[in-house]
Amino acid sequence: MLGIETIATYIPETKKSNYDLKEKFELDDDFIENKIGVKYHAIKDEGFQSSDMCVKAFESLLEITDVNIEEIECCIVVTQNPDFNIPHTAAIVHGKLNLPINCAAFDISLGCSGFVYGLSNIISFMKNNGMKKGLLFTSDQYSDIVDENDKNTALLFGDAATVTLISENATFIPIDFSFGTNGKEYKELMCEDNLYMNGRAVFSFTATTAPKHIKALLKKNSLSDEDIEKYFLHQGSKYIVDTIRKRLKVNEEKVPFDMAEYGNTVSSSIPIMLANEMDTLPKGKIVLSAFGVGLSWASAIIEKIK
Amino acid sequence: MLGIETIATYIPETKKSNYDLKEKFELDDDFIENKIGVKYHAIKDEGFQSSDMCVKAFESLLEITDVNIEEIECCIVVTQNPDFNIPHTAAIVHGKLNLPINCAAFDISLGCSGFVYGLSNIISFMKNNGMKKGLLFTSDQYSDIVDENDKNTALLFGDAATVTLISENATFIPIDFSFGTNGKEYKELMCEDNLYMNGRAVFSFTATTAPKHIKALLKKNSLSDEDIEKYFLHQGSKYIVDTIRKRLKVNEEKVPFDMAEYGNTVSSSIPIMLANEMDTLPKGKIVLSAFGVGLSWASAIIEKIK
Repeated sequence: MLGIETIATYIPETKKSNYDLKEKFELDDDFIENKIGVKYHAIKDEGFQSSDMCVKAFESLLEITDVNIEEIECCIVVTQNPDFNIPHTAAIVHGKLNLPINCAAFDISLGCSGFVYGLSNIISFMKNNGMKKGLLFTSDQYSDIVDENDKNTALLFGDAATVTLISENATFIPIDFSFGTNGKEYKELMCEDNLYMNGRAVFSFTATTAPKHIKALLKKNSLSDEDIEKYFLHQGSKYIVDTIRKRLKVNEEKVPFDMAEYGNTVSSSIPIMLANEMDTLPKGKIVLSAFGVGLSWASAIIEKIK
Repeated sequence: MLGIETIATYIPETKKSNYDLKEKFELDDDFIENKIGVKYHAIKDEGFQSSDMCVKAFESLLEITDVNIEEIECCIVVTQNPDFNIPHTAAIVHGKLNLPINCAAFDISLGCSGFVYGLSNIISFMKNNGMKKGLLFTSDQYSDIVDENDKNTALLFGDAATVTLISENATFIPIDFSFGTNGKEYKELMCEDNLYMNGRAVFSFTATTAPKHIKALLKKNSLSDEDIEKYFLHQGSKYIVDTIRKRLKVNEEKVPFDMAEYGNTVSSSIPIMLANEMDTLPKGKIVLSAFGVGLSWASAIIEKIK
């Protein structure tokens, strides 16, 4: 059965400290550490584009597992910061990685909900086309579009990329997915010249939508909290992760918080957490849930089987 | 079984005549009519964006069939000219069409191969997620990015959008798909500020790749030309359509040519032809094949079952 074999990440070494921005934005440590929960945000190398970050993630993948390039039949890049709009970034990544000519390649444009959508998408597409091995990238460099004077975004976002190896040698298998969209509210989080986020509106939407969405998915699968090992929530901010957890009435140990050292990495936040916890997670079911630009949200139940 | 129920199109009424450009580009009628095969190219209304063209295509859909908005569970927009990069155009379309909150929505970034990829993608995604009704849009307005002084592109491209209704009440069902990518050549067709196309290189790639790709897909499915009612090829230019047809050794009647009145409409070219021929096509198998930016290509066998 197709599933996640393993995940590798690229988090840039360069970090900007939010402590250095305390005066500029009139912040205190409590705001940095407990409200947004981001001490440092990761900044890509000068001149790096989305495809360069994907290549870095792939180099990390080669450090943890053997990948026979010739076997890759599908390459999807989830990004809203493509190198260009024409061509798709997946084609550029395809070229840089020397992927084979019979490899399907395309981009999916989604923000924070992108990994959950992308995971369902690549597994569905590969399964229906009889493909055995594929790469799902997430890659966004918000440092290119954030207005450094906008407190709502300048403190929050970090650059990162991930690559998820999809194969029949699965560590995690998919159980069920659920999706949602409220396109009428798209203006609350968008980018014309610079990124704009109505923090209050996005928080309110997420705090209302995400817990209900997760509960409904569990109910549909006749599962309750005791069947779930962990909940990997999109790392929007510490406050939103805490709020969703409290509304779900779930123990703190079951809900990792992992963005203090690099920020909100958009569609990379969940795969980064999964990569970090892959070896220590016990077998069993876990929940993924993500929400953001669109407005868009997606939740999934996946199972660690080894 | 999920498949194509019906297809509707939006081709702008405003047309630019290539005969008016004869002097500027030193053209003769033979070049216009027999080489590129584009007499007029369609130009969207002033200020229209990709989502506006999708809405127009959806309005046409409502003229040919009843659609219960509340039943739509998936909305995919294939475009490389999104309204914005953030959010995805599918979210904006979702809002404009009042699609329901439990509807999955995302963009796929692909050019000329986009409809064939998108068709496999939406059917796979819906099937694996138990969805019954979805909308696959294609929408590109190259008039925004074409350099009007570049003969290679200014005469060729037309603006258009299409919407394909996917449901279990299928007119066409999918039989098999095949995909390919050569990302190393992406610079032959790309857009930094304006669209750039190395016409000779793209022609050469297509003339070599497309016939082989189609033949291999037929062979894999133990089919020969006599099993195929028609071949719907991406309408890159008259010369490329003729060249592929000759290399396939297929009768002219089996290979529609349908771009003279509006141009190369990128990922909309195949669904426009399918929409135009839907009522007159006999039952039986047809081939779709498309190629372009990426470089990327995709072929499919689908079957008209009623």
